[in-house]
Amino acid sequence: MKNLKYSLSVIMLMVGNVAFGQQRPTMVPEMTEIWEPEVPVVKPGETPQAPPSDAIVLMSPDLPLEKEWVNGKGEKPEWTYENGEATVSKGDIKTKRQFGDFQLHVEWRSPKEVKGDSQGRGNSGIFLQGIYEVQVLDSYNNRTYRNGQAASLYKQHAPLVNACKGPGEWQTYDIIYTAPRFKDDGTFFTPPMVTVIHNGVLVQNNVALRGPTEYIGIPEYTSKPHGKGPLSLQNHGNPVSFRNIWIREL
Amino acid sequence: MKNLKYSLSVIMLMVGNVAFGQQRPTMVPEMTEIWEPEVPVVKPGETPQAPPSDAIVLMSPDLPLEKEWVNGKGEKPEWTYENGEATVSKGDIKTKRQFGDFQLHVEWRSPKEVKGDSQGRGNSGIFLQGIYEVQVLDSYNNRTYRNGQAASLYKQHAPLVNACKGPGEWQTYDIIYTAPRFKDDGTFFTPPMVTVIHNGVLVQNNVALRGPTEYIGIPEYTSKPHGKGPLSLQNHGNPVSFRNIWIREL
Amino acid sequence: MKNLKYSLSVIMLMVGNVAFGQQRPTMVPEMTEIWEPEVPVVKPGETPQAPPSDAIVLMSPDLPLEKEWVNGKGEKPEWTYENGEATVSKGDIKTKRQFGDFQLHVEWRSPKEVKGDSQGRGNSGIFLQGIYEVQVLDSYNNRTYRNGQAASLYKQHAPLVNACKGPGEWQTYDIIYTAPRFKDDGTFFTPPMVTVIHNGVLVQNNVALRGPTEYIGIPEYTSKPHGKGPLSLQNHGNPVSFRNIWIREL
Amino acid sequence: MKNLKYSLSVIMLMVGNVAFGQQRPTMVPEMTEIWEPEVPVVKPGETPQAPPSDAIVLMSPDLPLEKEWVNGKGEKPEWTYENGEATVSKGDIKTKRQFGDFQLHVEWRSPKEVKGDSQGRGNSGIFLQGIYEVQVLDSYNNRTYRNGQAASLYKQHAPLVNACKGPGEWQTYDIIYTAPRFKDDGTFFTPPMVTVIHNGVLVQNNVALRGPTEYIGIPEYTSKPHGKGPLSLQNHGNPVSFRNIWIREL
Repeated sequence: MKNLKYSLSVIMLMVGNVAFGQQRPTMVPEMTEIWEPEVPVVKPGETPQAPPSDAIVLMSPDLPLEKEWVNGKGEKPEWTYENGEATVSKGDIKTKRQFGDFQLHVEWRSPKEVKGDSQGRGNSGIFLQGIYEVQVLDSYNNRTYRNGQAASLYKQHAPLVNACKGPGEWQTYDIIYTAPRFKDDGTFFTPPMVTVIHNGVLVQNNVALRGPTEYIGIPEYTSKPHGKGPLSLQNHGNPVSFRNIWIREL
Repeated sequence: MKNLKYSLSVIMLMVGNVAFGQQRPTMVPEMTEIWEPEVPVVKPGETPQAPPSDAIVLMSPDLPLEKEWVNGKGEKPEWTYENGEATVSKGDIKTKRQFGDFQLHVEWRSPKEVKGDSQGRGNSGIFLQGIYEVQVLDSYNNRTYRNGQAASLYKQHAPLVNACKGPGEWQTYDIIYTAPRFKDDGTFFTPPMVTVIHNGVLVQNNVALRGPTEYIGIPEYTSKPHGKGPLSLQNHGNPVSFRNIWIREL
Repeated sequence: MKNLKYSLSVIMLMVGNVAFGQQRPTMVPEMTEIWEPEVPVVKPGETPQAPPSDAIVLMSPDLPLEKEWVNGKGEKPEWTYENGEATVSKGDIKTKRQFGDFQLHVEWRSPKEVKGDSQGRGNSGIFLQGIYEVQVLDSYNNRTYRNGQAASLYKQHAPLVNACKGPGEWQTYDIIYTAPRFKDDGTFFTPPMVTVIHNGVLVQNNVALRGPTEYIGIPEYTSKPHGKGPLSLQNHGNPVSFRNIWIREL
Repeated sequence: MKNLKYSLSVIMLMVGNVAFGQQRPTMVPEMTEIWEPEVPVVKPGETPQAPPSDAIVLMSPDLPLEKEWVNGKGEKPEWTYENGEATVSKGDIKTKRQFGDFQLHVEWRSPKEVKGDSQGRGNSGIFLQGIYEVQVLDSYNNRTYRNGQAASLYKQHAPLVNACKGPGEWQTYDIIYTAPRFKDDGTFFTPPMVTVIHNGVLVQNNVALRGPTEYIGIPEYTSKPHGKGPLSLQNHGNPVSFRNIWIREL
């Protein structure tokens, strides 16, 4: 009898506690077990960097770039693309799909040959829902403003540490994103929340954004209520490369 | 002149906006740059699973087990240990060091030979600050209560998905932990917050705990204010193995 | 020229800072003034207990009870009602209107003649959105379980202090309520949040609920996604009275 | 036997559920009752505006001003004071006592004779912990920037509505304040949280502050870790009056 789970000793324990008149009757372990619904199974990747079975793969050697991405006009993306590696060339690119809450894995590489400094070196960006930027920058021995370096939430939160690898090395961002919810007046009921792990190192720990990323001015009272949005990658004039991008909707 | 950063055009922009009498004068981009203090540099590991330069390595082939761990009595740990892999044998083990907020990487493996089922199969646990358990269990094709399976915060939060690998395979937990802060009466001012990534898959997203893990009853009004605490690994009678454990204090 | 607000000295200040090459140019006070949109005007009541101009008055001497309230079947409420004071008699009553986030003012009185004790004395309840109970009880020299006394969020949060007035005295609850938002699976994205001020004394400070109020068992995994809901007043068999109820939607 | 609370029927219910082998045994109501510790009793004021028994009275007709207040130099306060009503004259005043988390009641009145406009009319301020300002201003038919009007958290949060009474009328602020907690680097672990009820109308709903109030610039990266602080009242050059100030430490 599969379901006859409770032994006589358990019954006696329960009865005993009651009979002896304790103020709060003793619970049994099974009372805090929750069985339903069963947790869905996901097959993880071979390594933690490989896409698990429920991920939407956005960039990989198996996919032509135009499968999941378009340029700013909604047309075929005009970036260099080879072996699943896309390199900034003309315009920004963004996903055809729209996303709300998600877990995102991105790999990127700044040019091996160092040119420029501060914001002028290896600059690109990943825009969550198209408007909230996680900065991409070659911050390896390259001082800039703290809230604008690699893995900053641009001009809103500096990273906890600078975990940048050197120019020409592939780097990883693992991003956990909770989309904002809005009040009727267009202000945040709950703001966007972002966690970023850079090359395995926690650099943003569930921080709140104030509004869409702004290059000039204070990011507030400029947001409009929005639903899902695309992921977009920025052309900032430097030939930064991307690969192995996958996303899991939460 | 390194610091003479603002061009005449910027000055004119500022003056212009003021002269034209806008209600809110336009800011310039530099006003939202924050330069100090410089973000500290951390050298990441070769892979995201390898310890970065600021991590405390707790278990690795280079370390004898007794360097960082003790048994329940504070004496030499009595687990099997070879090549940086520790396997449950006698009693629990815990770190000599105490931790508050941290990022933690742990790898674990349930026995290749499957024995038992539900909570009886590949069961162990990682206790944050010694009292908050992240469940370790062979949850591969092994149904149990949802709030007690692998990567659950035991009897408090089921994982979002079951990302377990098979028996005998090494698995990873990446855990971000924010320790509770307390009121004078011993209740939480802020509760413990936990994020868990299991084999690269997000399974707990900054969830709050109600109190120390309880096998029986509701976890509340049982907590006492506490400071830092050790990491402890549970002996639940199954020969689960651990390796490559490192932690970064936040 | 109404808008020409900035004097030459302000312009010179801005220019000066830039010209001298500081890393972060000085802002002027006007840059952090936000003028639009204008904040809507509300005329407050004569006293803080009287309804402000934007409140929906639910119970007052000017209103017949059936204007805003129905019984459990949606029909005419069967409570005693005189001079804007409703007294528990038959069944529960609830508002015709549905509410989401709100500020609520309620006045209540337990019977002057004391009968019964613990939960049996002056027991009623205010159910926010019809399912989350703020307990009404004569807790004046009347010991009961702490999470079931007056101003508790029944079986979820005891009040910080017991600010009860004596039997037969009118008492006030000022309640600030933020409704839950839901995920697609029916669990809370954000839980209901409740602040209660009892007779002018803060007794619940923006605490989170775990689910709808439950008399038996742990309130979780029983919630269903819901939108707005009515305010309902409980018949627990004791002739508790209510008056001067108003609500402001937030 | 006072504690023998559970009848035979309850025992049978518990046993019955177990015997029939349900997956999760039924709890009984008493299992979610929490009896200890007893909630402390506070005697509320006659009206919600009168100080309850556990309040520290800071300003009342029974108290000389110098009992609880000093000027900026820690000496006898130099404000006009009569019948428990203090009017701005020379310098700021602040409490001798220091406070952390609290509930605060303040009554204030702008001059009956209207002089000036915008920030120049009936301007004063209440500084929580000496550095976080709740604005006091005659905002009755007096347009100014929304984040600087009465009941704003100055230059951080505009009030939800403008609930100002007219010049010369006494007004109430009921403020619930949670002090910040700090990380070792001086940034907020949790920010200051503020609720304000103005003349009975909710105008700030548990909003977070970014840092100490700043007249110029963005309030961040300027905070230093601090413990308890005084309450201070601002001299902004207008003869604003205060009375009936009491505070309850939380």
